[in-house]
Amino acid sequence: MTIVLTNAWVLTLDDTMTQHNPGWVQIDGTTITALGSGTPPTIDGAEIIDCGGDIVMPGMVNPHCHMGMSVFRGLGEDVDDRLYRYILPLERKFVSAEMVRAGSALSALEMIQGGVTTVADMYYFETEVGRVAEASGLRAIVGQTLADFDPPDHKDFDEGFARVGQLVEEFAGHPLVTPSIAPHAPYSTGLKVMERIAQWSADHPDVPVQMHLAESTLEVQWAMDNHGQSTVAVTRDSGLLKPNLICAHCLQLDGADITMMSEHQVTVATNPRSNGKAGRGIAPVEKLRNAGLPVGMGSDGAMSGNTLDLFSQFAPVSMFAKLLAGSRKPLPAAEVIRIATIEGARVLSLNLKTGSLEAGKQADLIRISLDAPRLHPIYDVYSALVFATMPSDVTDSMVAGRWLMRNRQVQTLDTKKTLRDALQIAHQFKAEMIRLDEDRP
Amino acid sequence: MTIVLTNAWVLTLDDTMTQHNPGWVQIDGTTITALGSGTPPTIDGAEIIDCGGDIVMPGMVNPHCHMGMSVFRGLGEDVDDRLYRYILPLERKFVSAEMVRAGSALSALEMIQGGVTTVADMYYFETEVGRVAEASGLRAIVGQTLADFDPPDHKDFDEGFARVGQLVEEFAGHPLVTPSIAPHAPYSTGLKVMERIAQWSADHPDVPVQMHLAESTLEVQWAMDNHGQSTVAVTRDSGLLKPNLICAHCLQLDGADITMMSEHQVTVATNPRSNGKAGRGIAPVEKLRNAGLPVGMGSDGAMSGNTLDLFSQFAPVSMFAKLLAGSRKPLPAAEVIRIATIEGARVLSLNLKTGSLEAGKQADLIRISLDAPRLHPIYDVYSALVFATMPSDVTDSMVAGRWLMRNRQVQTLDTKKTLRDALQIAHQFKAEMIRLDEDRP
Repeated sequence: MTIVLTNAWVLTLDDTMTQHNPGWVQIDGTTITALGSGTPPTIDGAEIIDCGGDIVMPGMVNPHCHMGMSVFRGLGEDVDDRLYRYILPLERKFVSAEMVRAGSALSALEMIQGGVTTVADMYYFETEVGRVAEASGLRAIVGQTLADFDPPDHKDFDEGFARVGQLVEEFAGHPLVTPSIAPHAPYSTGLKVMERIAQWSADHPDVPVQMHLAESTLEVQWAMDNHGQSTVAVTRDSGLLKPNLICAHCLQLDGADITMMSEHQVTVATNPRSNGKAGRGIAPVEKLRNAGLPVGMGSDGAMSGNTLDLFSQFAPVSMFAKLLAGSRKPLPAAEVIRIATIEGARVLSLNLKTGSLEAGKQADLIRISLDAPRLHPIYDVYSALVFATMPSDVTDSMVAGRWLMRNRQVQTLDTKKTLRDALQIAHQFKAEMIRLDEDRP
Repeated sequence: MTIVLTNAWVLTLDDTMTQHNPGWVQIDGTTITALGSGTPPTIDGAEIIDCGGDIVMPGMVNPHCHMGMSVFRGLGEDVDDRLYRYILPLERKFVSAEMVRAGSALSALEMIQGGVTTVADMYYFETEVGRVAEASGLRAIVGQTLADFDPPDHKDFDEGFARVGQLVEEFAGHPLVTPSIAPHAPYSTGLKVMERIAQWSADHPDVPVQMHLAESTLEVQWAMDNHGQSTVAVTRDSGLLKPNLICAHCLQLDGADITMMSEHQVTVATNPRSNGKAGRGIAPVEKLRNAGLPVGMGSDGAMSGNTLDLFSQFAPVSMFAKLLAGSRKPLPAAEVIRIATIEGARVLSLNLKTGSLEAGKQADLIRISLDAPRLHPIYDVYSALVFATMPSDVTDSMVAGRWLMRNRQVQTLDTKKTLRDALQIAHQFKAEMIRLDEDRP
């Protein structure tokens, strides 16, 4: 089965940022087999799709998400103690396989509509997330979270490891869904368990590790109080600081931490909107990139960042870099789009498969309409993408040659059922929130 | 002619933030005559519009824009010296009545599509902006800019004042378009001319004054070097610091400046995205509000902020307030929506006419679809509006009882012609940019 997208403004995001305008992309099965400028060669039996001048570019890579949590979207917004007041009690009471399935489906729906084709997730009941990802057609890394705060799906780390084992068994060798292990954070895992995970990880080199790192001043304080050094140094001592570790947030870092992270070849998922909304701070993205660390840009969970597309992250990540420098020059628009695509893929060690449009790579791509007046004029297509394009402009999405969305219609999930299931859970949350508010002293 | 919007989630934005859900709004001619919860009374001959549960709320107020500049959108993005390298040369060569008309129409189109119903503008050939606003149906304050840097439409201030006079004459008494005088900034007007404008303004108390104020460290330096005090103090000495002055940006302020502004009862238009993108800094919005100053939230020109809807400003203004405080609590979502509506109207002294849905006020309102999965669940409608709603969710827009958009179709402007006219000008700009780049030493 051959598909040829023609008459497109093709942004390849390859090493030299090649553009073909007008251009074409040939897809055979799961794979991009050829692409170029002008008119494509004639191929017998190929389906030809005229893109009418629309942008065709790599699907975006969201390297940090908690898909199950979309049912918490906007809950307790602006409430300083919402974590202890609402979220932890609700998680203890309601997080179940069913809830994770419903929340993950809503998240998958939104990400497909918003141009994301690859996501790295970490939450509980993670086999459910893997199943939803599989059904939705998204490329995904699904990480079973391990934590010591009485999380909803394991009463101790032995049970947590058992869940990781089930996850790995179910998805080992899956073409799109990669199982992962996800210690929640240094302070909520502890040095001993981090060491145990590092040993397990050495025996499972193909299983990526995801962890929140240097997210808050409280974490920095924990590391100093308990280990007399930075949280990054504690992680290094545990053996976890190594090439398959994806570090989320990374706000509270000093120069020595960044050097350590670079030497141990970890990767970083920054979450500018989530961090900004929480008033937590600004990640030193330019410093991390200058130290050679791959940096991707994540949505975090919808409870923290509200939306799961990456367009929502573009202005924050740009503004933060420019404000830190006091200049409009840092982190140019083209680099923001690289972070959203090929650099994000590099963060997940998926850059040989996805993140750019090149012959031999998987056909993970999106089509973006330029109909909206707010997109014009276009002097620099990357500036238009970063500062004027919105999720609603994404019309089509493909992963490994399979259409996930055509003409704004998601093909792989039932939109109405997905919304209904999520709203049912939100209904339970609302009742419980009233009860929790009434119970307050 | 009576219109009744029924079955709507009505957000009134009145003083007690009344919501009617389900609710209705009755419009007679240009005016809201009644509104309430449940089922509306039967009115013979009224047009009943079932909103299907959609949000109906006040149209948004954009208190700072340069509508003519949308043809510069994204030009020289990330180029540090773009002002001198591209923009000033292009403005000198190309800014004309025709260009301003084309740029303003593109801006009007985008603002209508994005939920803005009132805008305050300042640029050159401002009668053209007034005419475009009139044709588009937007409520507008249109300010003729006066500056000393050889601007495109007046060789000296006498000519500038003549333009102001023509503008005032053409639009005096207009129900929707209010003429305004707009000294560019203290450093580009000078104390003597500011005094002259202050005198003129005393004779024209109904003509609002708009000015960029405390936008950059260079301006602060100019005031200190030339007058030995802050730029706000210089403005006070000129007599311009008074109740009908709308101050745009207001980044470089100390406590004394804020007190002075409060005592003289000026109003403020903050432009978070434009300021963030330029790396210029963060406006002290909470301090200004705590000092009792009305603060609205503007888009600035598309050259600086890229998009002209206010949704694009919500995350930046929120994040900046929360980052300054290191907490998720400041500037709650409901306050952000107040800033975008009734507070913005207050900034323009239009709050008795627009900015909230109340009987007797003008029927300036928008309808927002809740179809998008990313909007759900909704625990707090203001959080959903601030952090998950996008311009594409706005389906209908009305100003003074006239529909400007129905079901995403703008009724008052020709979308295709508007785009074509703007792109023709962009074409000239691109050719000139190549020439300018070639001419560089």
